[in-house]
Amino acid sequence: MTKTLQRPLAALLSIGDELVLGEKLDTNSKWLADRLGTLGLLVTEHRTVPDNLEKIANSIVQLAGMAGVVIVGGGLGPTADDLTRQGLARALVLTTGEPQPLVEDADAVRAIRARFERAGRTMPETNLVQALRPANALSLPNPHGTAPGMLARVDVAGRLRLIACLPGPPREMRPMFEDAIEPAIRSLPGVARSELRVVQVFGLGESELASRIADLMHRENNPAVGTTASSGMVTCRVRVEPTLPVRGPYDATEPTQAVEEALASIGRVAKGYVASRENTTLAATLLDEAVAAGLTIATAESCTGGLVGQLLTAEPGSSRAYAGGWVTYSNAMKERELGVPNADLEAHGAVSSEVARAMAVGAADRAGADVALSITGIAGPDGGTSEKPVGTVWIGCVKKGQPPVARCFRFGGDRAAVRLWSANTALFIGLQAIRGQSGVPLLWERP
Amino acid sequence: MTKTLQRPLAALLSIGDELVLGEKLDTNSKWLADRLGTLGLLVTEHRTVPDNLEKIANSIVQLAGMAGVVIVGGGLGPTADDLTRQGLARALVLTTGEPQPLVEDADAVRAIRARFERAGRTMPETNLVQALRPANALSLPNPHGTAPGMLARVDVAGRLRLIACLPGPPREMRPMFEDAIEPAIRSLPGVARSELRVVQVFGLGESELASRIADLMHRENNPAVGTTASSGMVTCRVRVEPTLPVRGPYDATEPTQAVEEALASIGRVAKGYVASRENTTLAATLLDEAVAAGLTIATAESCTGGLVGQLLTAEPGSSRAYAGGWVTYSNAMKERELGVPNADLEAHGAVSSEVARAMAVGAADRAGADVALSITGIAGPDGGTSEKPVGTVWIGCVKKGQPPVARCFRFGGDRAAVRLWSANTALFIGLQAIRGQSGVPLLWERP
Repeated sequence: MTKTLQRPLAALLSIGDELVLGEKLDTNSKWLADRLGTLGLLVTEHRTVPDNLEKIANSIVQLAGMAGVVIVGGGLGPTADDLTRQGLARALVLTTGEPQPLVEDADAVRAIRARFERAGRTMPETNLVQALRPANALSLPNPHGTAPGMLARVDVAGRLRLIACLPGPPREMRPMFEDAIEPAIRSLPGVARSELRVVQVFGLGESELASRIADLMHRENNPAVGTTASSGMVTCRVRVEPTLPVRGPYDATEPTQAVEEALASIGRVAKGYVASRENTTLAATLLDEAVAAGLTIATAESCTGGLVGQLLTAEPGSSRAYAGGWVTYSNAMKERELGVPNADLEAHGAVSSEVARAMAVGAADRAGADVALSITGIAGPDGGTSEKPVGTVWIGCVKKGQPPVARCFRFGGDRAAVRLWSANTALFIGLQAIRGQSGVPLLWERP
Repeated sequence: MTKTLQRPLAALLSIGDELVLGEKLDTNSKWLADRLGTLGLLVTEHRTVPDNLEKIANSIVQLAGMAGVVIVGGGLGPTADDLTRQGLARALVLTTGEPQPLVEDADAVRAIRARFERAGRTMPETNLVQALRPANALSLPNPHGTAPGMLARVDVAGRLRLIACLPGPPREMRPMFEDAIEPAIRSLPGVARSELRVVQVFGLGESELASRIADLMHRENNPAVGTTASSGMVTCRVRVEPTLPVRGPYDATEPTQAVEEALASIGRVAKGYVASRENTTLAATLLDEAVAAGLTIATAESCTGGLVGQLLTAEPGSSRAYAGGWVTYSNAMKERELGVPNADLEAHGAVSSEVARAMAVGAADRAGADVALSITGIAGPDGGTSEKPVGTVWIGCVKKGQPPVARCFRFGGDRAAVRLWSANTALFIGLQAIRGQSGVPLLWERP
């Protein structure tokens, strides 16, 4: 871990009963950590504590003891349970030993009054509490809400600490971070951007991939390689500290060369399974490659019920390649809308190679699309048989000028998991079709 | 805060570079905090730390110092950066002063081997590391993945502490929490379930609802009423501490009576906007009420691209009422598959009252469904005009025997937000149709 100690550390503190009690999902910490990383800081801890003065103050003190930059979110509203102002003041007393009275910031008062006037409302006097700040902290303007932020620079045992308090709502927090906190961080000594590159691998499994790149994954390496898996997709992250010497199984001497070598190694051992060399979604990759190849896509979904279409259309500009699709949940709709032969449904059942192929062919024909993907399976919890247990899914694919194919999978997990693995696998099969790699079997494919 | 101090405390620790660096959003903490609250515990802190042995061990020790139940998530994979097993062992050494060697759990080894065998694969030897546990901890079976959990009971300064380590993927973590951790928590001394009841309100807005039930929402009340909002749905939670006296604007003296009064009050002020009196999804409520009324549903989606179908089919047993749908992303598909008149597309554009109505009628006809919902709008980021800015969405609905209707909305936020608000609003409009309440306007409806 010596290498990471050379990057300035940052820590995050989220404040709010609603967060700590699980009534609301904290999305700010992820956003902030990501941004701080890009700025060259290493985030070392997130904490979430309730609206409790003692816990807020103690957490700020502890986090400032381990990290040079502490970003505090929430607790800046006008009500009695908004305690971040007092919490920061007490933390500053504890770290500096000096008194830190709360003072009313004149600019903040003017800004809050002006905001209410613009809205044609009278400012409740209770809102004045939002203009308070510790005497030695700066007040940060909030163009998107009534809660100003606060920024304090303190000396903890001879080391400069930056403590910033930002409002909780993302649309207020994010601009304030960009306008006031980013410049303050850039001016800190020792801040240098670290570099992150990504390879996404689908269909190979995390353990299998990790065993193939074990020599790259030693924790002391620079660049460091880590993996995370999510519904079939394994994301390999290659992170380099440009200020450190190369360490690991690399011929290169320069960090950037070593990154390229690591990326190339992963590409070699995962040949046929690389979904993307960027941090993106399978849907976005499929759409991009379809557009580049001048191909359009249609979908025919049974057990996923629109999930593949939803993932594709979640991407802006998806209409460049996605024509549309069908949710043929009932057998009647499979027959009537996609022309699946009743004989196939009768003889083989809806979850079969024949029906998956016919659904794909029907969707391609009716949508006039170049590529069509189909899914028919048993997502559970009910509907399984000994022959076709829950998790059995057939995925069909047809590409113009080629015979249709259908491939069988057996996914584990609950209904949501079976559906998401099915949708991701279908998207990757679409990629394989466009790339001419349909012969590469996925790890979880049934022969 | 006096009442809450009487409840046993819990703390959460999430482990993973990808979480602390902001590469992945942590949704487990919210889920766990919510569940722990229902079990009668008060969650007092969440922490997220990187894959770092020292930080993992120290955090477990610190959290076990403040809370009787510590739930640790993640870091149980087979790779070198999965350090929760070692972290727990070191934390146990630090708290008990006794050696805690890692031992291979025989049952866990068998379960992992069997899992690979069932999948027809050979277990990589690296996976054996997942069967390790500290000598004094229990191994928890994981039916949904290769990572067993761990459960340790330790004595910290004379107080019993429960430390549970669960896998990171939600579909593995959640069942393990329910199967192994909930019973262990219930058996702890001093744990009394607080009772939680819920009313879901759609289409009224959180501020408006909160102002109508302000007297119920004082923080000192018992039962306490809180609201959270998510994409148009406001969930009112009525939480009672059965061991405390009733406090608030209630005639009742018994906590359970007071809960009923609070629920009835909310129902009165939100008349016409109550989606459900359970904590469920709009899709589940719509399906349940459709089944009860003997009605079937079809969907025709443009800008949501399958999201409504996906939400409906995410519910087990959705085939009882959902026939299927169309993702008519292109105008050509709207015409050809749903029979939308070309003249309407030309004269009014795809995002119009006329097209929304025609889509709904076409979907109902072709699917042979009793109710059809349609969505056509501009989700952004591009495609907006001054007349129809991004966020403009028409939602159509037809119910057998009634003329089709279309309603216009203007949603804020990014593409994902517009799509989710659109889908939720369509589901609620479906509910209104089934309930015969289509005349009740939603707060964000355009006249």
